[in-house]
Amino acid sequence: MSLDKTIYLGPFVHSTSLKELEICTTGAIGVDESGKIAFIERSVQPNSVPRRPGWETAKVVHIQDNGFFFPGFIDTHIHASQYPNSGIFGSSTLLDWLETYTFPLESSFRDLSVARRIYTRVVSRTLSHGTTTACYYATVHVPATNLLADICFERGQRAFVGRVCMDRLSPDYYRDESVDAAVRDTKACIEHVQHIDPGYELVSPIITPRFAPSCSDDCLKQLGQLHKDSGVPCQTHISENKAEVQLVRELFPKSKSYADVYDEAGLLTAKTILAHCVHLSDQEQELIKVREAKISHCPASNTALTSGAARVRELIDRGITVGLGTDVSGGFSASILEEVRQAIMVSRHVAMTDGDAAKLSTEEVLYLATRGGAKVVGLEGKIGGFEVGMGWDTQMISMGSVSEGGELSHNDGPVDIFGKEAWSDRVAKWVWNGDDRNVRAVWVKGRLVHGTDS
Amino acid sequence: MSLDKTIYLGPFVHSTSLKELEICTTGAIGVDESGKIAFIERSVQPNSVPRRPGWETAKVVHIQDNGFFFPGFIDTHIHASQYPNSGIFGSSTLLDWLETYTFPLESSFRDLSVARRIYTRVVSRTLSHGTTTACYYATVHVPATNLLADICFERGQRAFVGRVCMDRLSPDYYRDESVDAAVRDTKACIEHVQHIDPGYELVSPIITPRFAPSCSDDCLKQLGQLHKDSGVPCQTHISENKAEVQLVRELFPKSKSYADVYDEAGLLTAKTILAHCVHLSDQEQELIKVREAKISHCPASNTALTSGAARVRELIDRGITVGLGTDVSGGFSASILEEVRQAIMVSRHVAMTDGDAAKLSTEEVLYLATRGGAKVVGLEGKIGGFEVGMGWDTQMISMGSVSEGGELSHNDGPVDIFGKEAWSDRVAKWVWNGDDRNVRAVWVKGRLVHGTDS
Repeated sequence: MSLDKTIYLGPFVHSTSLKELEICTTGAIGVDESGKIAFIERSVQPNSVPRRPGWETAKVVHIQDNGFFFPGFIDTHIHASQYPNSGIFGSSTLLDWLETYTFPLESSFRDLSVARRIYTRVVSRTLSHGTTTACYYATVHVPATNLLADICFERGQRAFVGRVCMDRLSPDYYRDESVDAAVRDTKACIEHVQHIDPGYELVSPIITPRFAPSCSDDCLKQLGQLHKDSGVPCQTHISENKAEVQLVRELFPKSKSYADVYDEAGLLTAKTILAHCVHLSDQEQELIKVREAKISHCPASNTALTSGAARVRELIDRGITVGLGTDVSGGFSASILEEVRQAIMVSRHVAMTDGDAAKLSTEEVLYLATRGGAKVVGLEGKIGGFEVGMGWDTQMISMGSVSEGGELSHNDGPVDIFGKEAWSDRVAKWVWNGDDRNVRAVWVKGRLVHGTDS
Repeated sequence: MSLDKTIYLGPFVHSTSLKELEICTTGAIGVDESGKIAFIERSVQPNSVPRRPGWETAKVVHIQDNGFFFPGFIDTHIHASQYPNSGIFGSSTLLDWLETYTFPLESSFRDLSVARRIYTRVVSRTLSHGTTTACYYATVHVPATNLLADICFERGQRAFVGRVCMDRLSPDYYRDESVDAAVRDTKACIEHVQHIDPGYELVSPIITPRFAPSCSDDCLKQLGQLHKDSGVPCQTHISENKAEVQLVRELFPKSKSYADVYDEAGLLTAKTILAHCVHLSDQEQELIKVREAKISHCPASNTALTSGAARVRELIDRGITVGLGTDVSGGFSASILEEVRQAIMVSRHVAMTDGDAAKLSTEEVLYLATRGGAKVVGLEGKIGGFEVGMGWDTQMISMGSVSEGGELSHNDGPVDIFGKEAWSDRVAKWVWNGDDRNVRAVWVKGRLVHGTDS
């Protein structure tokens, strides 16, 4: 599909490093027919369009209402199938939460009409929150998982779609019947994505052992072999909850650690996304570092299920790559902006015991939500920021203006701009009170996938 | 002002005790001309209006879209004047945050047009979030404080409006010039409210020493005397941050504790609202209990400013009355529903160190947000629940329905109801993902003060 050459005119904000957020208030970004950034200008006069050869007839999209362009968010861990349970967890913790809330819902995806309804909704929701790339866990069902891939592809969301493997310690009504079945069905889902998007340009399969307790040793090893043979990335959970860590210790008595279980199966590689990492030992962190495996930090979920508080500063300082995940529905919200807030808040709680160095700044967490996420999913240099050659995976943020009379004009969203705020404070106000109402438009690879561009 | 007799028809939800939430799906509540609940029926047939003598011609308000009536929220601690700074705090903690962000903004309220714009906005915002009663801190300025009282009165929000007293350790550009000035100006604000609302039926003054470090010993004592003589309630901060606690120790070397400072001044009574209470000693908790002083728990603020995590379970178990406060703008949001979430999340962090008993349930925190708040502000039995004789201070909650095709109908808010959710799960989904879009209408004393009732 060829797009109109387009110039996006107005302020843009993005991370240039972990600690630095560039706020350019006089920007213009040209996006070519393939949806990639062709040029970036940083000193454009207000209300003027930069003149460039070959761009005279380009479409122009103007920023609106105290707005700015921001890179699309990358959700590195979300269970699409659990979306209807968002906010439903009571006082449970991981293992009883799975039994009570999760498995009954996931098992209903044997009915494809259930899957269509829920997956359509979750893709609409995540796009509306500015999520341009999502790493989805589906269910064990092949047709439903393939349908999720189809929906992402049609709606234009970048996605990693994983069929969940679980051949033990799972309910009779919801499990893989054998290791062979787990591998065969995983391959079927890989083949489906190869069929709809052969180059994995937008949608990619991802090998998804649920977590070590749900998978036999043989299952993990065969999935590790498939990971190696196919080059398809993999995702799983690790060290979310202390009871789970203890369970893994009992189930894999020969392994040195939880991380070691995955490593022995060939599932701990540079193309592995590990969700949670709350209770990792030093040795496990070091192993993850050496293997260049990536971490999805899911603070809302970790707090909601009382799993613990991940030591993100420690992980980052060690040189491990970290992104953010909503972990719906352990996490209650499908919004990465909410997860940004939660990550900052959890880091404050860590700081209360470990000292101020543990605090993550707004800039740092926005980096995790964009550039960090891009590294986690193996798309570093392709998405996550504004650089020539990167894909235009972008959200247009707008915010309301407070009139002299104290009423809100132009935008009835949750953020009130009074007019005297410095630009860095406007960004902070968006981070802390913004929601999907502030997401006026979303593009993936230059294609408008949510909202309106005029 | 006389109102139409009105029957509110449909599900209603409210706390009947700390641990119990009544969910009545077949309700009808009659509200009389004075805005008080005249009757409650719990077994009304769908789509039928109960027949009662004298109510034949009453107006009927039907619940909409997966909705329910819920008591209005009570925000027991909010700095109205700081609202434009919502979300602006960076990595600061209490004392530098005051200097950097707060005092410069508050001082601008010497200009009444600034005050009008901001106070109009904050009352609109809090009403839109379902806050029917708010305990406001204004600034030191008498005209601006009186204007806030006027705006609350006109808009119909129950409010406690406090002129802030601060005669030391405050910037030269923003402080009381003397103890006499602090007392005189506080009296002027009390008299203004007596003038507009003589019985304090809707708006009440509240004596507001900022906090002990900002007030000389003499200032606290004179305000304590005024509190005793006038019967006007008082509000202040206590034990929010460790550096602040240490500062109080240095400033009041003769006092046994921070709580003792207030007690010695006659400011620790059954009509005192103490915000924060994060680092209280056992002795202070016991003193607060004995004096029957009330506590405003402000979890969002306490985490955002890395103040600490209040031990709410301990306070409740001791028999102390606790409500919730947004503490805008130490807290980033003007929404008590957000504070409900934050209170649950903070209690999880406390549970991670102190054990599971510290966890607050959704039911418990909704109690704090309504019944607890009512006790904190001295309106127990008048607001906070649905009982005959109570005022109709209510929000009508509605939520979206997901169509079979996966799209959202009727309501474009943030909560997706798929249809199979149990009623308790619907409430949980509202708690965890709801926002002002789910607040379709708000009434105070039977008067519609936000949204639409049809």
